[in-house]
Amino acid sequence: MEGNIFSNTEFYYTDPKNITGSEIILEDEESNHLVKVMRHSVNDFIFVTNGEGKVYKSKLIKIEKRFSLLEKIETYSQKEKFPNITFYLPLLKSADRFEFSLEKCIELGITNFKLFIAEKSYKNKINIIRLEKISVAAMKQSLQAIKPRINFIKDLKISDTSLNIIFDQNAENKLSESLGTILEKKNINLIFGPEGGLTTTEIEKLKNTYNVYLTKNRLRAETAIVSAASIISVSN
Amino acid sequence: MEGNIFSNTEFYYTDPKNITGSEIILEDEESNHLVKVMRHSVNDFIFVTNGEGKVYKSKLIKIEKRFSLLEKIETYSQKEKFPNITFYLPLLKSADRFEFSLEKCIELGITNFKLFIAEKSYKNKINIIRLEKISVAAMKQSLQAIKPRINFIKDLKISDTSLNIIFDQNAENKLSESLGTILEKKNINLIFGPEGGLTTTEIEKLKNTYNVYLTKNRLRAETAIVSAASIISVSN
Repeated sequence: MEGNIFSNTEFYYTDPKNITGSEIILEDEESNHLVKVMRHSVNDFIFVTNGEGKVYKSKLIKIEKRFSLLEKIETYSQKEKFPNITFYLPLLKSADRFEFSLEKCIELGITNFKLFIAEKSYKNKINIIRLEKISVAAMKQSLQAIKPRINFIKDLKISDTSLNIIFDQNAENKLSESLGTILEKKNINLIFGPEGGLTTTEIEKLKNTYNVYLTKNRLRAETAIVSAASIISVSN
Repeated sequence: MEGNIFSNTEFYYTDPKNITGSEIILEDEESNHLVKVMRHSVNDFIFVTNGEGKVYKSKLIKIEKRFSLLEKIETYSQKEKFPNITFYLPLLKSADRFEFSLEKCIELGITNFKLFIAEKSYKNKINIIRLEKISVAAMKQSLQAIKPRINFIKDLKISDTSLNIIFDQNAENKLSESLGTILEKKNINLIFGPEGGLTTTEIEKLKNTYNVYLTKNRLRAETAIVSAASIISVSN
């Protein structure tokens, strides 16, 4: 299934636990958005995703104060585009720029994120609830059915055997040109630096690294993140 | 010259009229940033661009209240990356998202912009002074020497013989795959839609059009803009 089958609709999200047999319940904000904002009424057809790759074409049956009841009509499946890719995002000085880059990555099909406090990060706290909201909104808005996995890991520690992609302005290899080879790997981590970049200590701790550059222009931290996501996105 | 020669420095901008012979004058904010923020002092080496492709390695000679005097030491030339490409950006509902997309395009090397009020734009005014500031800051930040040309053209009217690229989720051709052929053209306009997209009336008015899609995900207006800029950027 390709996103553009639904290009003129909107998606709603509900936790899988709210789906039993042919019954779907939309809670609180989702139900409110459905009825109050989008002004849907009983018998309207609605697309609901469970965030686990399923999209249900369903019919609005009942509207209650705090929830809406829908009935499944048809089920579609959506594959995760980049299950083998994880974006390691450092906390950035500007929450806006950080949230913007996360939102854009999700719209572009990235689903796995590890947030870390880089040695040069100016911040050490995030509002994970807010980030979860942004990510679900971005998933729905881009008509995708995989709820992004966002983990806050504090320090940049990677023990697994993934290929660790590091962005280095002076690298010999260009991400866009190495992408074919990179994407064949089983697990790929793209590790981005904060405003001041990653420190040598942080980089030395990483094994199995591969340095790439995006463009010869010097890019802001969040621009590098969105640009990398764009380049990966079109490869699928 | 490639941006990364300067990767550990910062750029300053001055209007060409402030450069006479070997003398360079930085005015007001630029001078203030140089002295008060970056705390440079006499005899420091500074990189100044005239926004017309020149970068001057220069020496700080004199610091006055409202300006600084520098002396040219060496001159570098930077080529415009995409002189044949113009981004047509519709005014977006959110000024933040609009400014963000413009800033990112500039960091990624796009230099020609025409801003228009799309039929579905929620806004009809822009703060051109603010956009000029953002664009000069983005040029300097990404170590580029071409001051972006930003024109506000009100309606989407294109009389010239350029190739007009339109973004259409259901297009057969993918921008990233058609790029080689597209970039051979003399003049290329990339025409983006606002939140609600371009209307058929707007599209029918355009001649010599070529429809492309970026990815099958439905992208927000500003995401499509930044994503297209990223894809073009790495082609250079």
